[in-house]
Amino acid sequence: MSNTFKKISAIAYEGPKSKNPLAFKHYNPDEIVAGKTMRDHLRFAVVYWHTFRGTGSDPFGAGTMQRPWDDGSNSVKNAQNRVRVAFEFIEKLGAPYYAWHDRDVAPEGRTLAESNKNFDAVAKVLKEEQKRTGIKLLWGTANLFSNPRFVHGASTSCNVDVFAYAAAQVKKAMEVTHELGGEGYTFWGGREGYMTLLNTDMKREQQHLAKLLHLAVAYKKQIGFKGQFYIEPKPKEPTKHQYDSDAAACLNFLREHGLLPHFKLNIETNHATLAGHTMQHELEVAGAAGALGSIDANTGDELLGWDTDQFPTSIYLTTYTMLSVLKYGGFKTGGVNFDAKVRRESFEPVDLFYAHIGGMDAFARGLKIAAAIRKDGRLAEFVKQRYASWDSSLGSKIESGKATMKELEAYMLKKGEVTPNTSGRQEFLENLINEFI
Amino acid sequence: MSNTFKKISAIAYEGPKSKNPLAFKHYNPDEIVAGKTMRDHLRFAVVYWHTFRGTGSDPFGAGTMQRPWDDGSNSVKNAQNRVRVAFEFIEKLGAPYYAWHDRDVAPEGRTLAESNKNFDAVAKVLKEEQKRTGIKLLWGTANLFSNPRFVHGASTSCNVDVFAYAAAQVKKAMEVTHELGGEGYTFWGGREGYMTLLNTDMKREQQHLAKLLHLAVAYKKQIGFKGQFYIEPKPKEPTKHQYDSDAAACLNFLREHGLLPHFKLNIETNHATLAGHTMQHELEVAGAAGALGSIDANTGDELLGWDTDQFPTSIYLTTYTMLSVLKYGGFKTGGVNFDAKVRRESFEPVDLFYAHIGGMDAFARGLKIAAAIRKDGRLAEFVKQRYASWDSSLGSKIESGKATMKELEAYMLKKGEVTPNTSGRQEFLENLINEFI
Amino acid sequence: MSNTFKKISAIAYEGPKSKNPLAFKHYNPDEIVAGKTMRDHLRFAVVYWHTFRGTGSDPFGAGTMQRPWDDGSNSVKNAQNRVRVAFEFIEKLGAPYYAWHDRDVAPEGRTLAESNKNFDAVAKVLKEEQKRTGIKLLWGTANLFSNPRFVHGASTSCNVDVFAYAAAQVKKAMEVTHELGGEGYTFWGGREGYMTLLNTDMKREQQHLAKLLHLAVAYKKQIGFKGQFYIEPKPKEPTKHQYDSDAAACLNFLREHGLLPHFKLNIETNHATLAGHTMQHELEVAGAAGALGSIDANTGDELLGWDTDQFPTSIYLTTYTMLSVLKYGGFKTGGVNFDAKVRRESFEPVDLFYAHIGGMDAFARGLKIAAAIRKDGRLAEFVKQRYASWDSSLGSKIESGKATMKELEAYMLKKGEVTPNTSGRQEFLENLINEFI
Amino acid sequence: MSNTFKKISAIAYEGPKSKNPLAFKHYNPDEIVAGKTMRDHLRFAVVYWHTFRGTGSDPFGAGTMQRPWDDGSNSVKNAQNRVRVAFEFIEKLGAPYYAWHDRDVAPEGRTLAESNKNFDAVAKVLKEEQKRTGIKLLWGTANLFSNPRFVHGASTSCNVDVFAYAAAQVKKAMEVTHELGGEGYTFWGGREGYMTLLNTDMKREQQHLAKLLHLAVAYKKQIGFKGQFYIEPKPKEPTKHQYDSDAAACLNFLREHGLLPHFKLNIETNHATLAGHTMQHELEVAGAAGALGSIDANTGDELLGWDTDQFPTSIYLTTYTMLSVLKYGGFKTGGVNFDAKVRRESFEPVDLFYAHIGGMDAFARGLKIAAAIRKDGRLAEFVKQRYASWDSSLGSKIESGKATMKELEAYMLKKGEVTPNTSGRQEFLENLINEFI
Ligand SMILES: [Co+2]
Ligand SMILES: [Co+2]
Ligand SMILES: [Co+2]
Ligand SMILES: [Co+2]
Ligand SMILES: [Co+2]
Ligand SMILES: [Co+2]
Ligand SMILES: [Co+2]
Ligand SMILES: [Co+2]
Repeated sequence: MSNTFKKISAIAYEGPKSKNPLAFKHYNPDEIVAGKTMRDHLRFAVVYWHTFRGTGSDPFGAGTMQRPWDDGSNSVKNAQNRVRVAFEFIEKLGAPYYAWHDRDVAPEGRTLAESNKNFDAVAKVLKEEQKRTGIKLLWGTANLFSNPRFVHGASTSCNVDVFAYAAAQVKKAMEVTHELGGEGYTFWGGREGYMTLLNTDMKREQQHLAKLLHLAVAYKKQIGFKGQFYIEPKPKEPTKHQYDSDAAACLNFLREHGLLPHFKLNIETNHATLAGHTMQHELEVAGAAGALGSIDANTGDELLGWDTDQFPTSIYLTTYTMLSVLKYGGFKTGGVNFDAKVRRESFEPVDLFYAHIGGMDAFARGLKIAAAIRKDGRLAEFVKQRYASWDSSLGSKIESGKATMKELEAYMLKKGEVTPNTSGRQEFLENLINEFI
Repeated sequence: MSNTFKKISAIAYEGPKSKNPLAFKHYNPDEIVAGKTMRDHLRFAVVYWHTFRGTGSDPFGAGTMQRPWDDGSNSVKNAQNRVRVAFEFIEKLGAPYYAWHDRDVAPEGRTLAESNKNFDAVAKVLKEEQKRTGIKLLWGTANLFSNPRFVHGASTSCNVDVFAYAAAQVKKAMEVTHELGGEGYTFWGGREGYMTLLNTDMKREQQHLAKLLHLAVAYKKQIGFKGQFYIEPKPKEPTKHQYDSDAAACLNFLREHGLLPHFKLNIETNHATLAGHTMQHELEVAGAAGALGSIDANTGDELLGWDTDQFPTSIYLTTYTMLSVLKYGGFKTGGVNFDAKVRRESFEPVDLFYAHIGGMDAFARGLKIAAAIRKDGRLAEFVKQRYASWDSSLGSKIESGKATMKELEAYMLKKGEVTPNTSGRQEFLENLINEFI
Repeated sequence: MSNTFKKISAIAYEGPKSKNPLAFKHYNPDEIVAGKTMRDHLRFAVVYWHTFRGTGSDPFGAGTMQRPWDDGSNSVKNAQNRVRVAFEFIEKLGAPYYAWHDRDVAPEGRTLAESNKNFDAVAKVLKEEQKRTGIKLLWGTANLFSNPRFVHGASTSCNVDVFAYAAAQVKKAMEVTHELGGEGYTFWGGREGYMTLLNTDMKREQQHLAKLLHLAVAYKKQIGFKGQFYIEPKPKEPTKHQYDSDAAACLNFLREHGLLPHFKLNIETNHATLAGHTMQHELEVAGAAGALGSIDANTGDELLGWDTDQFPTSIYLTTYTMLSVLKYGGFKTGGVNFDAKVRRESFEPVDLFYAHIGGMDAFARGLKIAAAIRKDGRLAEFVKQRYASWDSSLGSKIESGKATMKELEAYMLKKGEVTPNTSGRQEFLENLINEFI
Repeated sequence: MSNTFKKISAIAYEGPKSKNPLAFKHYNPDEIVAGKTMRDHLRFAVVYWHTFRGTGSDPFGAGTMQRPWDDGSNSVKNAQNRVRVAFEFIEKLGAPYYAWHDRDVAPEGRTLAESNKNFDAVAKVLKEEQKRTGIKLLWGTANLFSNPRFVHGASTSCNVDVFAYAAAQVKKAMEVTHELGGEGYTFWGGREGYMTLLNTDMKREQQHLAKLLHLAVAYKKQIGFKGQFYIEPKPKEPTKHQYDSDAAACLNFLREHGLLPHFKLNIETNHATLAGHTMQHELEVAGAAGALGSIDANTGDELLGWDTDQFPTSIYLTTYTMLSVLKYGGFKTGGVNFDAKVRRESFEPVDLFYAHIGGMDAFARGLKIAAAIRKDGRLAEFVKQRYASWDSSLGSKIESGKATMKELEAYMLKKGEVTPNTSGRQEFLENLINEFI
């Protein structure tokens, strides 16, 4: 059991008047909101990759992060020690979940066999720490993009061996996820896309991607893993075009290849905005298709063109996110997963606490505000009334597929012009939201 | 028969050395390229809306276009006269096709009945002029976005009457398209989207859009119209989010609602780039799904965030476009439709000639270059070789769905590491393309 | 005196618990914040162009706005009546200022002389209404972009006559501004830019722009007008590149042409973000140069690429804006000018009230929050401490220009490495801001 | 003398019909174009950082580049050997120039003193190789952004020691540049900007930046270095906002701080487009201010939001670039510096040759086309004629500052309306350019 963050006690809820930067001002895990505790609504997860493996390097400079517990080596022992530090952090923070990529938690070996062995050795400590703390695995995933072998993609590589390697790696990551009681497994196609169409057979590559997912579906059944499969959309970076570019592209792909029943989406804010969409748009696209699974909670800078993966602090963002999450019934297997990294300039360990506390408080406020808006009812009532004409007999006939073009034309030829429209009231509605902020 | 452009003769092919701005330097309609005449490959179409109804107004200023033949009135007579001028222009240009929206060619009346009557009166002249000149209708479409009644959308309006009106208008536009021998019919959802999610039931709206398309499919069968249906993707503008945002979103929607067999896509360059994609990307997405129907030939300014709809002059753009078009077998029912407008500053009638000549020459060069690249074979061979490992027994086993995760893992555990990758050669390939430019 | 908005009383402050959409919840004009009334801090202005002349047309459709008081004609009488309605609105809203373009308030005539006459006739009513209500003119400006004569620019037109016309129009607009006691005069170069560099002599055009501003400076002195001159930056739209693209470009231009002492900047949020900057960035650039004059209060949609000019409702935006405004001493001649338009879908007159109330409340909250952050002092103290090393003797020596490279090298050769850096604490600071939201 | 690229001979000019990917098809160094050899026009430079130090790592994965000559160590010996390989490459390529950052060529030591010693040891080999080959140094620069000490900026750091360190490093880099006969010295403010305004005193930081430049100006004089100083604009990445964001921002800064006489700009294509401008725009802004110094030749992907630094292959880009370069009198001290990197997927050494050959050929074509357009004269004549009205007596009076607003008004009141405008002819002009492509 690690005792690295000696000077920092477990983060406590102190209420909105507290000026203690190491306390929650809004996240009060046992507080009931809309019939459930905040803990159960939000299901916060800490990510292993940014929080425990992020170095602060960027394309123009070396790592800056001060992580005194890390000996900088690639040893299994260092990896195991890091697990204990991580669990101390997550426990003090009070997050009920965490998530990993295989290569984040355990060092890659010289061969696949050695990598698997390393992974097992670290998974053992993960399991111990999960047991000790009660912290659970929200989802696992395989890193199929960092190693140079994935330079041309993983399942979509032009090199069939790379597909085989990726399949083997996914198999192992699924097994470890299963072993650790993971509630889900995520596919983010880090290099599943293309850099230039000049050298790419896009259709063949996408068929290979579908093959990998079918293999995973079959293997999941075989080993009895009951967790939810997720695909995480992202439009670009690292490749020029990522095949899973946005929610609609993912759904199209899943439908085309008969995979829709087996997958839900894991929606990330920064990926939504890189695709030119709001977070709420992507949540609604997923939700309308019955495929809203989980969220990667972060934020981008809409004036920058890359994935900044910042911690979310905008109350508008968290409110709109939670409005959609509540609308579609709340998280079942998913949660609020902080796929976010402290800024390169926030290189002290305490910044990890500030960052997560800020994100958790922001989501707590978003949850309470969204619940209040729903309880108030004016917003939902406005939308309902707006479509009232569709609840008429004409509307029902059209919706049930019983109207014909000819009769619609006859109706309108007789009427000459439509019943007047009414205002969409965007400003009124934005003001209404501000009543709750 | 109009004689408006007295000083301009029919545009002739004068070859690459000509300095005559009113001559083709590359488009030689009867010249054979890759086994077909350039005319038959390119199937150029002039659009009625921009070319004959564009005023040059923008959000910051009034119209600038000098169109001396137009009396500025909204009369049927003015509309009929304009048709004759249009056909004089298209004939002199030598484009074999044209395209319209219903409200471009004929004035809207006070009632739907009056609008239909106006439309018939103008369609009569369209038919005469088509017959006189041999110019054909590439596709027709209904304008369901300009009239204030469509302020909240057409088939996706919250007002059921607007759906009925839209259906009636589509019915009539399909009938006129059929009457004029149109080879296709296009759906561009001008306001089928949302301005704010706060007031929107996105799922219900999209179901209504699907209903309209099903009505159109049924009515098409009923009247025996054999033309191709197209959907034209566009991501934003005028609405914040257009439901048909890009090729993948359209395909997802068509698959969800069982409409894919009935529709192909009409891909526009400027809409592709507004969605964050290259034109070639969208063509490949459509082509890979067997849904590449037609193109709206124009270009945007990638540094501007709206649909500038400029005439295409980049030889790279036309080359990459024609590479994809030829790859998927060339146009069947579609063509190169100039959905482009002369700049607001290019307000003299002769600019319409310059603009179309430039676009046609650019596409003629793109066609010839693409054909030469295909004949040369080095590009295609490079791509083929790049995936050669997938033609192995392992590759075939995976592609045919006979491999399992377990055996892929066993294969890779034994091998330890993948066969080395080879360079993607992007710079080499870009240089190769430049050999042909 | 108009009595158009019969059913709407003067908008009253009802406090944060009110659910009345036609009441202020935060803007309490006489409330003292940081030593001044909210009225005097915020100096709200209603713009004539969007609010009384906006039609709701966009590039894809006709106007939608219902303005029953407007007879739709271009008559002086209609214009005069509209003035009275406008003042009824502004008075009921309780905004102390308004702003106009010459051609918004009075119709353009067939000649310049007639336009001037029309302008005088309407200005007479403006003066009466100003007197009656006490509402003042924040600034006037000339519309040098809507009429087709400005197709190639105004002072930057290739046509010297257009420069002369623009000068004459600016002269008249300055005179009327002076006559109405305007506190400022703004230059927004609506078409001062280029569409393509192919036909443009950029240097000569910018010299012409400088000439116009020098003429205005001279004429201002001549007539004794004491109001502040502003330039309003905007990067693109309607032209591809506007010469006054952002604050830095404006300052560069003003410095180059010796105009900096005579101008301040009028910063608009949506123009800032179109230029790739935050509003706060532009305010700080202007403020640091002693050139922060006034603001055009609105917001854009950062995912859309054009000037949406929406009403501002984000409390973060208004907080950051007011933090900068207070930092630079508050508004002297400028104010919070709502250069914003109701959405095309918000076409009922009451939407004008909702929109302005929402914007005013959002700025009232921003003001109160910014004042609280300043009073709290932790943010400013953090920044001060962050630069503490510069207050050392070494820092002072460098800042006063007395250090040399050689001695700095000697210092560092001896020291070997720098005193360690400390964290930038971005997440901590964002959380600190959230304490006040 | 290195013999690493044994299988590759010196790259020869073989003419446009060659299919040899390791030959020039257009760059013929001794060929005379517009009165000068292509070599003297283009002054190509290879950059040391991307070409010899680029690893192919990106934010999502490790390096991929195969550089068998590099032992991967940080030793001086490895650095010296690398220099010899680099010169073999540059010599075989036939580029007359190269450029470096201090830390690219020599390893950073544990102290500044050690770093300087390492630098001297490598500079000795650089000098030998320059002498042996005749290859010259276009410019040197200091890397003030990669080391974690620069996490908060270099001269703009909140830590005064970092300023001192930066000054010492610039001093040394200037000395070595001088020693090696460098023709220029460049300042690119890698981290001179901010990540968040919340913790930033922007004005004070910019004053510090100006101090560093003044120190450099003074030291340049002291040591008798006659090379040209350049500033390289870039808007964002790595910081959220870089102070030298675009050409106008740089000019504004230089004017404010009295530095304009001492600096010219080094314009990079990808930085231009990240700032929302075309390359030609930035060249014209610099040129019009007499500050066009050199170019960093590369290209970005306008659909991606980061600095992809790709090799330039678009003939349009090179044509427009060379049109501006020739217009402003050609390069004096600057050149065409390939600040470009091979794609991460192009990891074989031969790709370095393909990439540079493609870039050089593209610029050779751009030069020849630009020269042909200038010789043809139609483009320049069009522009001249477009402004003909300004060459009238009215135009001259305005341009010479002798006109008054009053007389311009009198002129226009009498005339009533402007002499009609004529078309801007954008499409005609784009077609004209295509005649030469
Ligand atoms: Co994520
Ligand atoms: Co991300
Ligand atoms: Co189109
Ligand atoms: Co378009
Ligand atoms: Co404005
Ligand atoms: Co604006
Ligand atoms: Co550069
Ligand atoms: Co760059």
